[in-house]
Amino acid sequence: MSRGTIYGVGLGPGCQDLMSVRADRLVRQASHVAYFRKRGRTGHARGIVEGMLRDDVVELPMEYPVTTEIPFEDPRYNALLADFYAGCVAQLAALAEAGEDLVVLCEGDPFFYGSFMHLYARLQGRVPVSVVPGITGMSAAWTATGQPVTWGDDILTVLMGTLPEATLAERIADTDALVVMKIGRNLDKLRRALARSGREQEAWLVEYAAMAQQRVIPLREAGDSAPYFSILVIHGNGRRP
Amino acid sequence: MSRGTIYGVGLGPGCQDLMSVRADRLVRQASHVAYFRKRGRTGHARGIVEGMLRDDVVELPMEYPVTTEIPFEDPRYNALLADFYAGCVAQLAALAEAGEDLVVLCEGDPFFYGSFMHLYARLQGRVPVSVVPGITGMSAAWTATGQPVTWGDDILTVLMGTLPEATLAERIADTDALVVMKIGRNLDKLRRALARSGREQEAWLVEYAAMAQQRVIPLREAGDSAPYFSILVIHGNGRRP
Ligand SMILES: C[S@@+](CC[C@H](N)C(=O)[O-])C[C@H]1O[C@@H](n2cnc3c(N)ncnc32)[C@H](O)[C@@H]1O
Ligand SMILES: C[S@@+](CC[C@H](N)C(=O)[O-])C[C@H]1O[C@@H](n2cnc3c(N)ncnc32)[C@H](O)[C@@H]1O
Repeated sequence: MSRGTIYGVGLGPGCQDLMSVRADRLVRQASHVAYFRKRGRTGHARGIVEGMLRDDVVELPMEYPVTTEIPFEDPRYNALLADFYAGCVAQLAALAEAGEDLVVLCEGDPFFYGSFMHLYARLQGRVPVSVVPGITGMSAAWTATGQPVTWGDDILTVLMGTLPEATLAERIADTDALVVMKIGRNLDKLRRALARSGREQEAWLVEYAAMAQQRVIPLREAGDSAPYFSILVIHGNGRRP
Repeated sequence: MSRGTIYGVGLGPGCQDLMSVRADRLVRQASHVAYFRKRGRTGHARGIVEGMLRDDVVELPMEYPVTTEIPFEDPRYNALLADFYAGCVAQLAALAEAGEDLVVLCEGDPFFYGSFMHLYARLQGRVPVSVVPGITGMSAAWTATGQPVTWGDDILTVLMGTLPEATLAERIADTDALVVMKIGRNLDKLRRALARSGREQEAWLVEYAAMAQQRVIPLREAGDSAPYFSILVIHGNGRRP
């Protein structure tokens, strides 16, 4: 019997018809789907494919052992996560070795800051893995602003809100176009960094890009908090005929 | 009679099943499709949708007046292009005002260094325009390398090969993950910039990502030239459990 393949499938930003034709087909035909979620939640990736799965699909939710209980800096955080990923990989690899194809549901593009990468790195060389790229959250975010993000030879910098304030400020001052992801509880720090770099007025906040609750606001009109699914965009202003 | 809508449709990196479900539907139903091409060529975007169009579709090729005949720096270059875009916009807007829906075929994601943006900027406020994001060429490129591009809080910088060598070298030295687009005749300069920043050994060249001719090679094994559809990738190496 031949081994199955594990498909890391990029679902795009969260709207079913922004999934690729390949992703759509793989999701609808899947006998097994795996996805990450927080304990007690549906799981965002699982939510995206609601109504698309086979009636007899086998679901394999992978529940994060920690989210915010242990601080990020604590060495136990990394150890716990490493164990968790190893366990997931053991389960998925066993199914693939038994001949099953599996679809792992991934938000956006799997290889772009995605959690699937942690499985991928551990699965390589063990079982066949195939990755399907997807439309990133940032593409949906800049599309939602109604303005192109990069022109001519604009430089685009992509930053995570988890970076230190000084790094954020320096990088924001030094780029044409900007994307910041993982904002959530980093919003205050990000605002200060934007102010330090003198670019607060250019920034747009896009919440839930391409989803039903999508909201696009100039950062100066945003409140004190932003949801996990938020992206900050500053548009480039490069050469154009 | 109501006005039609102009759809700027991201086709993704060049493989039909990496088009979004929305793009696939719009392309197959389109009564009118417009696309850029060089004189005497099929046009790359038009090539991607080969076999998908209605039998009675009206095709509107938009042929660039200049490509390499006039140097880029020459002020006549910009003037010629501006006239060209104005002419395209007049034609498309007239059709939309007459009630037709139109699909403009765009490689990758329309708002990410795309030529559609030049039409978009001139169409805004005249007729309804709707933009469909797409999978970028860079997503296909890093997927093709078989390695995730960004981990943890890696910084990603996207550069155009058209930038000056010194700018390239400085930016390449100063980022975690890197994407360089528009390589073509800038390959030599880009190589020198990579050498100056000490990162030549980390660089991958991906030609025709997600297309039939896809080729992935370490830059050090690449030849003296690269096709227009080439992307250079350096993977980030950030925190991971
Ligand atoms: C772990 S990263 C995953 C990125 C994903 N792989 C991608 O390609 O977009 C999670 C972050 O992505 C951003 N994000 C992804 N999709 C989004 C969307 N549709 N709207 C807003 N933010 C999104 C948010 O900043 C969030 O904190
Ligand atoms: C005018 S830009 C268009 C970018 C496009 N809008 C996107 O989202 O990828 C053209 C450049 O994109 C890059 N590119 C786009 N698609 C590609 C692909 N499938 N393979 C390799 N390079 C690609 C090349 O570097 C090329 O010079």
